[in-house]
Amino acid sequence: MSADRHAPRIDRAARAAAEAGLAGLLVTPGPDLGYLTGYAPLPLERLTLLVVAEGREPVLLVPALERPGALASPAGGVLEVLGWMDGQDPYEVAAGLLPAGRLALSDQTWAAHVIGLQRTVPDASFTTLGEALPLLRAVKDEDELAALRAAGAAADAAFAGILDARFQGRRELDLAADLADMLQANGHETVDFTIVGSGPNGASPHHDAGERVIGAGDVVVMDFGGHRGGYCSDMTRTVVVGGATDEQTRVHTIVQEAQQAGFEAVRPGVPCEAVDAAARAVIEDAGFGEAFIHRTGHGIGIEVHEPPYIVTGDATPLEQGMTFSIEPGIYLTERFGVRIEDIVAVTATGAERLNRAPRGFAVVT
Amino acid sequence: MSADRHAPRIDRAARAAAEAGLAGLLVTPGPDLGYLTGYAPLPLERLTLLVVAEGREPVLLVPALERPGALASPAGGVLEVLGWMDGQDPYEVAAGLLPAGRLALSDQTWAAHVIGLQRTVPDASFTTLGEALPLLRAVKDEDELAALRAAGAAADAAFAGILDARFQGRRELDLAADLADMLQANGHETVDFTIVGSGPNGASPHHDAGERVIGAGDVVVMDFGGHRGGYCSDMTRTVVVGGATDEQTRVHTIVQEAQQAGFEAVRPGVPCEAVDAAARAVIEDAGFGEAFIHRTGHGIGIEVHEPPYIVTGDATPLEQGMTFSIEPGIYLTERFGVRIEDIVAVTATGAERLNRAPRGFAVVT
Repeated sequence: MSADRHAPRIDRAARAAAEAGLAGLLVTPGPDLGYLTGYAPLPLERLTLLVVAEGREPVLLVPALERPGALASPAGGVLEVLGWMDGQDPYEVAAGLLPAGRLALSDQTWAAHVIGLQRTVPDASFTTLGEALPLLRAVKDEDELAALRAAGAAADAAFAGILDARFQGRRELDLAADLADMLQANGHETVDFTIVGSGPNGASPHHDAGERVIGAGDVVVMDFGGHRGGYCSDMTRTVVVGGATDEQTRVHTIVQEAQQAGFEAVRPGVPCEAVDAAARAVIEDAGFGEAFIHRTGHGIGIEVHEPPYIVTGDATPLEQGMTFSIEPGIYLTERFGVRIEDIVAVTATGAERLNRAPRGFAVVT
Repeated sequence: MSADRHAPRIDRAARAAAEAGLAGLLVTPGPDLGYLTGYAPLPLERLTLLVVAEGREPVLLVPALERPGALASPAGGVLEVLGWMDGQDPYEVAAGLLPAGRLALSDQTWAAHVIGLQRTVPDASFTTLGEALPLLRAVKDEDELAALRAAGAAADAAFAGILDARFQGRRELDLAADLADMLQANGHETVDFTIVGSGPNGASPHHDAGERVIGAGDVVVMDFGGHRGGYCSDMTRTVVVGGATDEQTRVHTIVQEAQQAGFEAVRPGVPCEAVDAAARAVIEDAGFGEAFIHRTGHGIGIEVHEPPYIVTGDATPLEQGMTFSIEPGIYLTERFGVRIEDIVAVTATGAERLNRAPRGFAVVT
């Protein structure tokens, strides 16, 4: 099972590395290591390093005390696991395992390890997986799509639940706790963020959730997600307490149309930036271009943010099986914000929404 | 309050950097950023970078959409916060903020950012905070010691609770869930690890917790902790189900004596490695030296593992206010393991235990 899943991923990564002119890939604990080997330890200060290079057996170097755990993980069935002892210089040990030439490090490798390797192997040159092979995990297989669909459905269920909650007179933090409970009740193993931005707080896209007490007439942005079955959910809806003003409704409608325009722009072969441009044009044409202060979306999978990025300047062509957010927003400083976000998957001919909750301007109490 | 706490830390860091011959410090999201500024965003792919250098005002560069959140955090009261926009090259923006010369990066800075900065500022040379200023957060002030004492007391309470739990016939995972519940009930905001290693699983120091059903006569290693009030707990006790064999008792007694020997070696001025040597000597003299396969301890604070490290080859002299674990162990492959761990603080004349639970070989049911 593990060998079935992970060995082909390692083979594909080795081939892609060679095709990209790399001597090899160096992967430390994090999403790339989990994807390639099924081994997912906490990233800590002791060096754990997977070395993948075409024409060689892959090797996983781990602290000696982690070796039994690594062998017991799916990685143990796929590759050789070597241990280094406390007191040894792990970079010296690693140096003996590295192919000569240009090497790509996993993006989240700690600087301590990057600098340690650079010093120990001064002839090597380094890049990152995100630069050299940004799309290594971007095209999802059927199992991954099923996991992302399930995560999206669970987030939808949490949103359906929160619509029944009382908003007025409660703090953002209370609603955030409700959302967390509902994500967990719907099978999430972790809740990674529960943004509740009410009134002026909604105008700060990454405002978390605070002590502010929600009042009548507040627009409330809720952006929440976590991990379910190892894959991420991430959705945003914006609601209004009691009833909306004409201006609030107008801004929400523009964002909803922008989100729809982004969705309709998706199909294989379209560059990422065209999806951003499609959503952005709606907001710019309505005169709110300056108030849409972030990119339109980000890939999603094992990580909540991963390539491809739906941003100006990124010409990466979409491929069937890619999954990402489409989340335009309008932020009116010190007043309110609106954002609407669905995760979508690229199909053979267009896109599939992995969130299916209504996108209209729901009124809550 | 924030300015009281964080401004002096930034000043001290700037001075220490200059004394270490550094042009400046570059700090990305993680424990160093939280310590210096009180700003603790999730580490994500967009660059967030604090630049600290003696003789300049500190600057925090953040993604534009995070700027309101950064300004609302304690950092907003201490330093200038600049935003960069999606579509800009953040490394180009950062390059304009960097002093010329040797720069130290926070240890956990992502490789993507390290490589991005190295490429954009090819004349700079880089090291890490862990190498250049390893002790920046090592000496705790009174507030920090109080937080660590409270975290230790909460872990003690969780251990006291688990002694009343049923072990026999239940899975390691069930006991791990009990421990997590008790840590949370005692005020932990996160539970970071709940190792339960029974029988042969205890011989793998970082075995997590699994499906194994605990039986009579099993030795069970429990190593657990998390964050309480922003500071970490981390303690280990080893118990036996029903009653111990003579060999099990002998091994436990040796580890307990090694732990005590390590504790008694602690006082200001003593090198870290002397504490390791004191604990290790007890185990070596008893003939189990090969079975103690890891260092004796690690510093602890905002992070569960941070300098100083209690390891062979580390001559760092202990100072009053440093906090670290003393956790010797004996691991008998495929049979059982024993480890005992307390967090201690260096006092003016010796050491204070921040865990006070009994260290004897408790019998559980």
